Amino acid sequence: MECTLSRRELPDKRGTIMEAIGWSNGRLFLLDQRALPIEVSYLDCRNLTIICNAIRTLAVRGAPAIGITAAYGVVVEVRNIIEKKGQCSPEDFEGVLDTLLATRPTAVNLSWAIERMRIVYNDFDGTPSGLIEALEAEAREIHDEDITMCMEMGRHGAELIDDGDGVLTHCNAGALATGGWGTALGVIRSAHAQEKNIHVYADETRPLLQGARLTTWELMQEGIDVTLICDNMAASLMSNGKIQKVVVGSDRTVANGDVCNKIGTLGVAILAKYYEIPFYAALPSSTIDLEIPSGDLIPIEERSTKEVVGYRDTVWAPKGVEVWNPAFDVVPNELVTGIITEEGVVRAPYEENLRKLFG
Amino acid sequence: MECTLSRRELPDKRGTIMEAIGWSNGRLFLLDQRALPIEVSYLDCRNLTIICNAIRTLAVRGAPAIGITAAYGVVVEVRNIIEKKGQCSPEDFEGVLDTLLATRPTAVNLSWAIERMRIVYNDFDGTPSGLIEALEAEAREIHDEDITMCMEMGRHGAELIDDGDGVLTHCNAGALATGGWGTALGVIRSAHAQEKNIHVYADETRPLLQGARLTTWELMQEGIDVTLICDNMAASLMSNGKIQKVVVGSDRTVANGDVCNKIGTLGVAILAKYYEIPFYAALPSSTIDLEIPSGDLIPIEERSTKEVVGYRDTVWAPKGVEVWNPAFDVVPNELVTGIITEEGVVRAPYEENLRKLFG
Repeated sequence: MECTLSRRELPDKRGTIMEAIGWSNGRLFLLDQRALPIEVSYLDCRNLTIICNAIRTLAVRGAPAIGITAAYGVVVEVRNIIEKKGQCSPEDFEGVLDTLLATRPTAVNLSWAIERMRIVYNDFDGTPSGLIEALEAEAREIHDEDITMCMEMGRHGAELIDDGDGVLTHCNAGALATGGWGTALGVIRSAHAQEKNIHVYADETRPLLQGARLTTWELMQEGIDVTLICDNMAASLMSNGKIQKVVVGSDRTVANGDVCNKIGTLGVAILAKYYEIPFYAALPSSTIDLEIPSGDLIPIEERSTKEVVGYRDTVWAPKGVEVWNPAFDVVPNELVTGIITEEGVVRAPYEENLRKLFG
Repeated sequence: MECTLSRRELPDKRGTIMEAIGWSNGRLFLLDQRALPIEVSYLDCRNLTIICNAIRTLAVRGAPAIGITAAYGVVVEVRNIIEKKGQCSPEDFEGVLDTLLATRPTAVNLSWAIERMRIVYNDFDGTPSGLIEALEAEAREIHDEDITMCMEMGRHGAELIDDGDGVLTHCNAGALATGGWGTALGVIRSAHAQEKNIHVYADETRPLLQGARLTTWELMQEGIDVTLICDNMAASLMSNGKIQKVVVGSDRTVANGDVCNKIGTLGVAILAKYYEIPFYAALPSSTIDLEIPSGDLIPIEERSTKEVVGYRDTVWAPKGVEVWNPAFDVVPNELVTGIITEEGVVRAPYEENLRKLFG
């Protein structure tokens, strides 16, 4: 579905934000991020197969956005099952959840959102159409909460950004990766809204180029200054004194404060340490997993070699070359200056301070 | 000119090496590295325009290879001038040198090779055809010396590589970047020839992907194990214990031991420091510039935004996005474990030890 970018009203009614996940008259529409920035199009997600494929192939990506999409996905598929069979049995329901859970292993929001939908199903006692309504209400709640959390994160995080700062970010942790506003880019958006003069440097973020394709595009839409660099230029930029803060998102942050995020984040954190530049991760509490004690226990998704040997239909590496392609890496807590959450900025000792706020 | 890869005999007659720069019956042929690994083709370099264009557009690249090409380029163009005018005046000769010098600012070999050709011209007293012969002899000498230096570097450097090592390299500092054998890949080649079991990890090296296109291809031709990664995966690889040594080349190394090399090298060096992995630069003395006291004085070439917003005809970034595209960065001497040269491995204090060997 080729169309113009749709916008959503912010919870505080102070404006609108680009809509990556749309829910309209009981239908789920996803801005197809594989096609950005060349083309703006929305996927009409009529069934579980389309939704799971969209998650797996990164039409929708970013931990918060994956969680919201999965929640709406449950609504869509339960309604399909009820239309076909008249009801949705516990086996059918769990089947839907399992299929969604299998799409991507690293982002914790997927299982977090799924668990919220499960509680609604288990607690529900009423008609099939009432079940659909209850699930829809929960999915909308998850979506609304996420935007509110992002704006709170933005408010807390913006205090860390000074007028005149050069801010480096990696991948896309923006409105496109969340229900709206964004995590890392939410902090930048909020600082920009406070009329702080900031310049964002966006790592292109190989192999899937979310920085080059999405972060630049998202910031250009908002009129925020942005310069695109290749991932391997960040060190040189820092050595030239152009970066005062690093802000990234997170797919899962664990009990000791180790931060898992898009591949390349670890390298950026080490460079920031070397140049004594503060490194912040901005993340909603829905991405915090206190059940995992440290980052080395997070399952890291490995993706197809196809992503590394070229881009889309263009192949540049020799045929048959061996490739390693992890989708994420883990930043050890010692490299993290602060974790920006909707409840405030958490600092070391993380074990203690994360549990105090979110335990 | 589409053809098969031609090979050149090694100076020690112990085998052959792929030929990136061919000189045959007074004609210069360059393996067109822009087309690799998809296509093996040689450029027939009949005049200065073709040669300068080949250097500027990276059909030939790598400091040593640029120097050799420039030397042969002088021969080709002086012969063209003599064929046209009967002689080559000092003004004509200096014009040729200036045009070559203007192609790329960072690699010091270009001016080093040009200076050697200038000395031959200035010292020569004979017929025009004698001049061509003298210049040709010097160019061939520069080429042969480079291979010999690479093999000596390989011999010294291989002592630093242990059986079972994982070796990370950046960009292409191989046979393709030199007269043959290579600098960083020369060390790897020599270790492999000693039957050390090593596994090479090649950074893809955005934006022009010399690692993905050239290093993988060159090593696969030689049967040396290689795994391709995106630049931003190096930190994760090191944190997983897969890398025991880092070996890179250099475009210019200055008096205090600061090493200038392909953009991204600085980041790799900082990561190596963090993980306590030895970081070596392998370079012939022709790339050492003792007249420059420290790395911040090296001119850094900035290249077209076109290279960063996509690859060849594929564009993935939004139209009009601002881009920063430096071609090189500088590794400060404190991050360099050792400099592998044809005379041996130089260690800190570099100022003193480099001058002792090459002053």
